[in-house]
Amino acid sequence: MVLATEQLQEAAKQGFKKKLVIVVSKGTIDMLYPAFVLATTAPAMGIEVDLYFTFWGLRVLTKKGVKSAKIGAVGNPGIPMPNLMGVLPGMTAMTTKMMKKRIEKYWPSVPDMIKMIKESGGRIHACSPTMGFMGVDEKDLIPEVDDIVGASTFLGWASDPEAITLFI
Amino acid sequence: MVLATEQLQEAAKQGFKKKLVIVVSKGTIDMLYPAFVLATTAPAMGIEVDLYFTFWGLRVLTKKGVKSAKIGAVGNPGIPMPNLMGVLPGMTAMTTKMMKKRIEKYWPSVPDMIKMIKESGGRIHACSPTMGFMGVDEKDLIPEVDDIVGASTFLGWASDPEAITLFI
Amino acid sequence: MVLATEQLQEAAKQGFKKKLVIVVSKGTIDMLYPAFVLATTAPAMGIEVDLYFTFWGLRVLTKKGVKSAKIGAVGNPGIPMPNLMGVLPGMTAMTTKMMKKRIEKYWPSVPDMIKMIKESGGRIHACSPTMGFMGVDEKDLIPEVDDIVGASTFLGWASDPEAITLFI
Repeated sequence: MVLATEQLQEAAKQGFKKKLVIVVSKGTIDMLYPAFVLATTAPAMGIEVDLYFTFWGLRVLTKKGVKSAKIGAVGNPGIPMPNLMGVLPGMTAMTTKMMKKRIEKYWPSVPDMIKMIKESGGRIHACSPTMGFMGVDEKDLIPEVDDIVGASTFLGWASDPEAITLFI
Repeated sequence: MVLATEQLQEAAKQGFKKKLVIVVSKGTIDMLYPAFVLATTAPAMGIEVDLYFTFWGLRVLTKKGVKSAKIGAVGNPGIPMPNLMGVLPGMTAMTTKMMKKRIEKYWPSVPDMIKMIKESGGRIHACSPTMGFMGVDEKDLIPEVDDIVGASTFLGWASDPEAITLFI
Repeated sequence: MVLATEQLQEAAKQGFKKKLVIVVSKGTIDMLYPAFVLATTAPAMGIEVDLYFTFWGLRVLTKKGVKSAKIGAVGNPGIPMPNLMGVLPGMTAMTTKMMKKRIEKYWPSVPDMIKMIKESGGRIHACSPTMGFMGVDEKDLIPEVDDIVGASTFLGWASDPEAITLFI
């Protein structure tokens, strides 16, 4: 933590934003952790958290998906394009295992991060239209999900002048 | 729609944001639909829409590109890295067709979404430097494009205190 | 430049935002340039710049990584999924070289863009937890890096009512 309590109180007086709204649109570990680290850091700074899981991100909210997130090649400068190495069978599993180990030296696992977000008051929302087109049923969702809402609910949060809104 | 008219009017009084500015930087269906769904939902909530198409997103504004957007593997937890399945010839086309069918059960096609955005008052902007380096000419663009503008114009919109700005 | 000085002064009076905070989470050329173009355009409009490099983006701040960024397939509608073409050895290098040439007709190289950002007053920040889990040491970083900070520092900037915050 960098900001002291007095600094936070000072900031609060100057109209600083107090809500963090993140669209979690990707389901790979490399894009989940940025969202989760922000969501677990914000409460200590007096910032409320709403995470809106949509598209690939929604699968992470299923009982099966929450345990099986893998490392993506997205934006990895070392794996810019499919290459011969990447397609050897077993490589994906090996790389995911290696990076998972490294990440878990620094942060809790995906299911534990989600639990921590809930314990610190954060809210977990599932995107209703994505549920439909991905064939996810309400009973498939993990118990940490607060509700299933649509794009207009998300826009309502984002239009709050106090909200920091990120699309990850 | 979740918010009732009176709630929206109440929100408007409290300085809620009334503009949605989205950078559309990716050209795959899985990242286009989040932008399009927000852009078609916002007008009913009294929120103006500006979409700024850049990099891979720009191709979607070409007569050829608007009809040929495909599903990306970006952030898909099930396809975290190039693997042997993904490289079998024909797999891409098959997966795209399958997911397109599912998506189109819930939302209109890409060209129709763009038309809907325009009909509800949204504006479609092409990024001028991307036009140059991608070799896209003004005559290649679909008629729905309002103008061709640069980064400073986008920053002008984003710096509006009433704007919700997302990079997708 | 689109806005004239008087327009900018007018905008300043109306409470327009004067800070640009970008999370640079991807290390491929196609996602670096959008961040760099915004960061080099903003200062001329009186907008301060803070770039927070995290995850794949962090590697770009290493002496080795800054020279070796490649084109990604992320969101490229023409390369939606690993396919047979993409896995031929040498294809990645060839495509990167081609697109690099095109991009460099319009903008300076990655190391030169970073220098330009610094010269116009922008700040370059490295994400501290990413340093740990990616095994990057302080001595590996390019001299343009201003500091190594965590998620709470980033949230402090983003919560400023004057900040435009993007996650790229």
